[in-house]
Amino acid sequence: MEYRIEKDTMGPIEVPADKLWGAQTQRSRENFKIGPSGSMPLEIIYGFAYLKKAAAYTNEELGVLATEKRDLIAQVCDEILDGKHDDQFPLVIWQTGSGTQSNMNVNEVIANRAHQIAGKKIGEGDKTIQPNDDVNKSQSSNDTFPTGMHIACYKRIVEDTIPGIIQLRNTLHEKSQEFSEVVKIGRTHLMDATPLTLGQEFSGYVSQLDHGIIALEHTLDHLSELALGGTAVGTGLNTPDGYDVKVAGYIAEFTGLPFKTADNKFEALAAHDALVETHGALKQVAVSLNKIANDIRMLASGPRSGIGEIIIPANEPGSSIMPGKVNPTQCEALTMVSAQVMGNDVTVSVGGMQGQYELNVFKPVMAAAVLQSAQLIGDACRSFEEHCAAGIEPNHTRIKDLLNNSLMLVTALNTKIGYYKAAEIANKAHEEGTTLKEAAVATGYLTAEEFDEWVRPEDMVGKR
Amino acid sequence: MEYRIEKDTMGPIEVPADKLWGAQTQRSRENFKIGPSGSMPLEIIYGFAYLKKAAAYTNEELGVLATEKRDLIAQVCDEILDGKHDDQFPLVIWQTGSGTQSNMNVNEVIANRAHQIAGKKIGEGDKTIQPNDDVNKSQSSNDTFPTGMHIACYKRIVEDTIPGIIQLRNTLHEKSQEFSEVVKIGRTHLMDATPLTLGQEFSGYVSQLDHGIIALEHTLDHLSELALGGTAVGTGLNTPDGYDVKVAGYIAEFTGLPFKTADNKFEALAAHDALVETHGALKQVAVSLNKIANDIRMLASGPRSGIGEIIIPANEPGSSIMPGKVNPTQCEALTMVSAQVMGNDVTVSVGGMQGQYELNVFKPVMAAAVLQSAQLIGDACRSFEEHCAAGIEPNHTRIKDLLNNSLMLVTALNTKIGYYKAAEIANKAHEEGTTLKEAAVATGYLTAEEFDEWVRPEDMVGKR
Amino acid sequence: MEYRIEKDTMGPIEVPADKLWGAQTQRSRENFKIGPSGSMPLEIIYGFAYLKKAAAYTNEELGVLATEKRDLIAQVCDEILDGKHDDQFPLVIWQTGSGTQSNMNVNEVIANRAHQIAGKKIGEGDKTIQPNDDVNKSQSSNDTFPTGMHIACYKRIVEDTIPGIIQLRNTLHEKSQEFSEVVKIGRTHLMDATPLTLGQEFSGYVSQLDHGIIALEHTLDHLSELALGGTAVGTGLNTPDGYDVKVAGYIAEFTGLPFKTADNKFEALAAHDALVETHGALKQVAVSLNKIANDIRMLASGPRSGIGEIIIPANEPGSSIMPGKVNPTQCEALTMVSAQVMGNDVTVSVGGMQGQYELNVFKPVMAAAVLQSAQLIGDACRSFEEHCAAGIEPNHTRIKDLLNNSLMLVTALNTKIGYYKAAEIANKAHEEGTTLKEAAVATGYLTAEEFDEWVRPEDMVGKR
Amino acid sequence: MEYRIEKDTMGPIEVPADKLWGAQTQRSRENFKIGPSGSMPLEIIYGFAYLKKAAAYTNEELGVLATEKRDLIAQVCDEILDGKHDDQFPLVIWQTGSGTQSNMNVNEVIANRAHQIAGKKIGEGDKTIQPNDDVNKSQSSNDTFPTGMHIACYKRIVEDTIPGIIQLRNTLHEKSQEFSEVVKIGRTHLMDATPLTLGQEFSGYVSQLDHGIIALEHTLDHLSELALGGTAVGTGLNTPDGYDVKVAGYIAEFTGLPFKTADNKFEALAAHDALVETHGALKQVAVSLNKIANDIRMLASGPRSGIGEIIIPANEPGSSIMPGKVNPTQCEALTMVSAQVMGNDVTVSVGGMQGQYELNVFKPVMAAAVLQSAQLIGDACRSFEEHCAAGIEPNHTRIKDLLNNSLMLVTALNTKIGYYKAAEIANKAHEEGTTLKEAAVATGYLTAEEFDEWVRPEDMVGKR
Repeated sequence: MEYRIEKDTMGPIEVPADKLWGAQTQRSRENFKIGPSGSMPLEIIYGFAYLKKAAAYTNEELGVLATEKRDLIAQVCDEILDGKHDDQFPLVIWQTGSGTQSNMNVNEVIANRAHQIAGKKIGEGDKTIQPNDDVNKSQSSNDTFPTGMHIACYKRIVEDTIPGIIQLRNTLHEKSQEFSEVVKIGRTHLMDATPLTLGQEFSGYVSQLDHGIIALEHTLDHLSELALGGTAVGTGLNTPDGYDVKVAGYIAEFTGLPFKTADNKFEALAAHDALVETHGALKQVAVSLNKIANDIRMLASGPRSGIGEIIIPANEPGSSIMPGKVNPTQCEALTMVSAQVMGNDVTVSVGGMQGQYELNVFKPVMAAAVLQSAQLIGDACRSFEEHCAAGIEPNHTRIKDLLNNSLMLVTALNTKIGYYKAAEIANKAHEEGTTLKEAAVATGYLTAEEFDEWVRPEDMVGKR
Repeated sequence: MEYRIEKDTMGPIEVPADKLWGAQTQRSRENFKIGPSGSMPLEIIYGFAYLKKAAAYTNEELGVLATEKRDLIAQVCDEILDGKHDDQFPLVIWQTGSGTQSNMNVNEVIANRAHQIAGKKIGEGDKTIQPNDDVNKSQSSNDTFPTGMHIACYKRIVEDTIPGIIQLRNTLHEKSQEFSEVVKIGRTHLMDATPLTLGQEFSGYVSQLDHGIIALEHTLDHLSELALGGTAVGTGLNTPDGYDVKVAGYIAEFTGLPFKTADNKFEALAAHDALVETHGALKQVAVSLNKIANDIRMLASGPRSGIGEIIIPANEPGSSIMPGKVNPTQCEALTMVSAQVMGNDVTVSVGGMQGQYELNVFKPVMAAAVLQSAQLIGDACRSFEEHCAAGIEPNHTRIKDLLNNSLMLVTALNTKIGYYKAAEIANKAHEEGTTLKEAAVATGYLTAEEFDEWVRPEDMVGKR
Repeated sequence: MEYRIEKDTMGPIEVPADKLWGAQTQRSRENFKIGPSGSMPLEIIYGFAYLKKAAAYTNEELGVLATEKRDLIAQVCDEILDGKHDDQFPLVIWQTGSGTQSNMNVNEVIANRAHQIAGKKIGEGDKTIQPNDDVNKSQSSNDTFPTGMHIACYKRIVEDTIPGIIQLRNTLHEKSQEFSEVVKIGRTHLMDATPLTLGQEFSGYVSQLDHGIIALEHTLDHLSELALGGTAVGTGLNTPDGYDVKVAGYIAEFTGLPFKTADNKFEALAAHDALVETHGALKQVAVSLNKIANDIRMLASGPRSGIGEIIIPANEPGSSIMPGKVNPTQCEALTMVSAQVMGNDVTVSVGGMQGQYELNVFKPVMAAAVLQSAQLIGDACRSFEEHCAAGIEPNHTRIKDLLNNSLMLVTALNTKIGYYKAAEIANKAHEEGTTLKEAAVATGYLTAEEFDEWVRPEDMVGKR
Repeated sequence: MEYRIEKDTMGPIEVPADKLWGAQTQRSRENFKIGPSGSMPLEIIYGFAYLKKAAAYTNEELGVLATEKRDLIAQVCDEILDGKHDDQFPLVIWQTGSGTQSNMNVNEVIANRAHQIAGKKIGEGDKTIQPNDDVNKSQSSNDTFPTGMHIACYKRIVEDTIPGIIQLRNTLHEKSQEFSEVVKIGRTHLMDATPLTLGQEFSGYVSQLDHGIIALEHTLDHLSELALGGTAVGTGLNTPDGYDVKVAGYIAEFTGLPFKTADNKFEALAAHDALVETHGALKQVAVSLNKIANDIRMLASGPRSGIGEIIIPANEPGSSIMPGKVNPTQCEALTMVSAQVMGNDVTVSVGGMQGQYELNVFKPVMAAAVLQSAQLIGDACRSFEEHCAAGIEPNHTRIKDLLNNSLMLVTALNTKIGYYKAAEIANKAHEEGTTLKEAAVATGYLTAEEFDEWVRPEDMVGKR
């Protein structure tokens, strides 16, 4: 491989000749060989691209950056956002906890690429723009990285996660309405209970997701606060007057999302409770999804020795040894995602609790965990909706058989003959293996006609 | 000990003669000898007292309960709420996961105590009111327990947790203003950084708690939804028309809190995402508190070999062997509370994710964890405020020494002489052990006068 | 209430006249009103009693404590271990993170009680023995509290937790053998699979617990290491030569357990990885128990609309509204315990990760969590064994019906006619709702006789 | 792109013409678009390669597979292990929870590649070997995936994780010995305490890692148990006699690691407590590493306003705005890894607790989390060792200044003049801002000569 020499305050270092990054990126690659390379999420890099462009615009507007420099920086940022330089960001999550090295990676790539755009060759001549003095002007790693991660997480959640949850929610809602007349046995403690409709059962899932979406949306305001303008410790040292509000305005404009400058920059650098808050809501959704997916696979279990009240789509051969078996694989993927999100919540919290003085240095791991959870939930909701939920059908025969065979319809008699007599009938049928009706009539507490009139599952499911 | 005989559908059982509970409570005591007895939180019992009274009022109003029975039930509920029967609820958290046995405990105590109030002796004569047919009328364990736990958690959080956090927040805010002119060295990565004021540092803590309070308040709406009226599976079987809305209204009236009936009772029984949501916010606050308390103990460390920038109150002799040492004990209590809350969050989530079909059977453990976290945070914030935060004072001498000795004031020169020259000065001072000013002048990049004019810590802390 | 005056280095303070504790305990009560009072586990106090007695014996033997003082201290320690002073330890977990105040509580109670035994009145005359100079001789809170917590946790685990797990393991093993000929349908992905015996299914549970017990036992060696002798920072300052080994020997002798002095006292004070390690194994057992209990409740589900392959004991009326329903309440208690333990694991880890320099100040919360988990697992295993596992019976009729109705016996044909033909038969039976045999014969791939010879569930379960 | 047609029991499907995988892999790609593609760890694929080869050898030896087929399978497995087909495994973690689709991916790649090796073109002519009937012979996804993941995790831990920890442990041990005479102030509760040597401080870290390595090694026996031979539900259906022991023997031979067949295959399929156990130990190590890294960055904090007792290597420019600042970036990477591992532990436990009947369907997420933690810990320990620990040097001047300035040396006087007088001296010096010696002499309790004789830090650090 060919190399060129790049320099920073520590001296010269060899960089692959065909790469746009500079000395500090290269040092980080050599110093942090931890896990697969390039693990720093690209979305954060894109977040940086938005903010570097916004900073250039603001700096120019406030008279501290030349217009040509602004335009060069903006042009490279747009290229990055177009995905043209994805292979120029090789760093890992497991670097400095402020993400300084990824900030410098972006600064270096922008400066070198700008040099190219200006018609020069990297490493030759004076730099057209300086990574520190120009690209990073009015900034610090300490305020850029949290800004980049807020942009990345906010975008991911509103563009991907919430739409995914809504897609699943809407299908479950349709199913709930479609199944509104399907009366079936209820189950509490896993035991037979009084009836409800399959639609009602699904409405509970819809309600869970509705609450989850609201919870997630509640967290967005905190997440929309940007640290940019705080620079090194939150005081905004070395920023021109009015910079923080303006730069947030540009970011809002460029992303089309309601970002704003954080009221308190000290919190925005030293604590990442906004990520803790957002991930808390993601975790709540994961908890809901686990319940929903587990219910659906139990309801679909069988085909002959399980519950079998619903039929889910057969998307693939289920087993390499057992022919004809179709497994709830989408439920399994979804619950595995839930498990991952539950763990990520601890990762985010453990990172969040350990800020020290003016800086929290768990930024990369926290942001990566939020982004992973946000993507997995969005993707898994879509996958589950398309390949499972949308195709769920009731197994009417099975549902009816289980309902009519049940002892728990006896509850309908509580208000007619009292709790203790009703219990006696249920116990009698249970012990003698008869139907409820036979047992009821045998006790003499009611007639067969009364039984038929009083015990009507469709009357036991309330308003629908 | 003397015993009397109580009966339920399983037959007779001996109960201590002086206790108000009945057969099902007694069975639970014998079947669940897990952990210390009486671990079921009393607050949940009080929640039950509110709802049993509300149910009696609603049942009477809707014509399914006699007025005298209503009044007897209400009278006993009031006694319970007055704390007169605290020793009548001996059950543990680790019982049936629906809390059925605690529901029956309450039903039995109310029925037996009503019998006494009616002038009769427990166990003699027909029961004045029946635990199942009267006290539990229009109810099921499956909707009462979640109602009781929502009442308990909501009350605890608005009456105790949030006021505790606010008390601490307000004191930190006062301190932030009080310290607004105290310029000190900043620290990022634990390393010396550019200056800020002690007031700014504290303002970050205030902002964390402000965000935490908002997050906690956001969860209250979900928590205000009551399951009551859903009965066994959510359909409201065996409840009179209009019951659910009315009974929630009475609970709101009796507690003075904005409770309402859950729109979807299936969710309210089968999922406890409301507890997951609320505890998520409690966990966020714990994360914040850990950061704050850890910062304060680091700032107060010393007295001679630590940071020593603030002085915290000496509340007790700190060590049994080292005379004169005063420890940050309130910080330690607060961070231990944080650790507990972080664990409780996993407990609540693990319980929440495992609902099955129409019921989640992790109710007691989830509710107990939320109540413990809510109490610990409220209490610990108050304790920390009173015995630590309120007495924090700056150590002005130490703060000034550290500030003036610092190399990081060099940052002020970035905009004057450029990043690389400034770095050179800092490095020179660092290597030669001199002051910044000496090194600066020695380089010839600026004069002593320029140094004094340009490097002014009080000008580096932004708007305050 | 009457008070007497006690003093410490901070001055005088009022203490309830009838209490044995002194000034520092009283200060802690007033400074740490966090959660219910007296939450510091008594087992830790008993751990202190063992070590104070052992320290007194060692100090006397090494010539730094008078024999009469040793005997007084030992006598009070024995009284504490007899449970005679349980009400003298009112402090909470949420105190100083070194547990200093509980160490002083013990020192003060011993000193005051010794004064009484010596025939004097507390608060009058010179103290017969000094809490600091005598009871705490050759000790520091920093080494006594971790010693007390190791003693408490070790005892609890070997005397309570492991026996509880073994009791359940043995019953499951007996059931496994008892059920060794009960051939039933297997289920993977919750779907019907090839058969196994109920005994084999239970043998998996036994194997889980066997592995869990081994894992728990592996942690005991670390837990047996005692910090005592390290004093304030681990150097053993102010201890006589040979003290650490001797004092551990006395503790081993008094408890009958193989305690030993920690090789490295710095680790023993500054890190509590031993608790992290032990709780990790408790968590593993909780994971196992959750699987086992969940399986058993699914297998027992019904009575008519669930799986219903086993029958579990009916210990209590299951529901206040649904007569005749018996719920898997012991399974629910056990899985709630699992949820608690999983949360506690995070609490212990979060505490463990935050040691700073020479001391970890999360000792009380870590120890309390380990003790709670250890007790809950032991108790819940016993409860589950007695009230559920011991009474489990197969529902032979149901098991046979499900087995014979299953399509998955087709797997037996894989080796006879190949995977694809077997799949064809299973699919045919599935689509046409026939038995496997009918479908098999209809395809012409095999005769009815061959089917009967080849498809024998009892031949499909391997060696038993 | 060009495609060919592949078929499975569900019918035909298009597959990229240049890929070796077949129908089921292709279906999985289309059905599970969750997260980045190819997230299934390659190490698990390699684990499969070992086991497929071992199965082929065993099947041939037991007479159920032709020798030529064995050799073809083995040849492809060797190619896979040589990394020649890394791009043929595009599936994600978030597929079916048994990993069936990755098992089929491997089967299909082996079958198609064998066809090529046999000189034929994929998709033309009869398959030389069948993915199900040959490659998967005597196997099921249910026993292959757990076998593959045990192989992968075991190898990673013994070849990577433990060596990484040992590398760090050894360097810390060398530093501990190197620093054995460097007497410094101790700190407990972050407050000045009695002295110890820097070597002793580091010896605590060594002891933590020593205990962690033992804990990790304890888990290897469980992890060495292989499920292979259990097939679909653990009974070993469709395996020849003696298969399980032999196949484990071949795996042991091919890997050079002590794998063995699991005594109980039901546990090995339905529970993955072995992963829970192993990850529990990884989490313990993460807890230790967090403490160690946090201590080191606090000790290195400064350069002028922190603790500054040690100097760590400067590997990169620390900040983009503050010249001359060098940050503890390796500490930050290591503590971020710790946070990730702590979250992964919850993921693994949440997956582990949810096995149902004969199968746990959280295999891929559990295995991926264990592998990630194992790799991150190994890599991060190496990175930390090379770029930080190996270069740590004491700042002798600073250490001496802090030590001599400390008040806590007064503890040395406890045994000379008693606790209360010593406390008085310390308090006097503290209040008057004098040295201890000045205060001591002023009280008249001792002479200057006695002070010098009695207060000798180097005598207060015990045996070294």
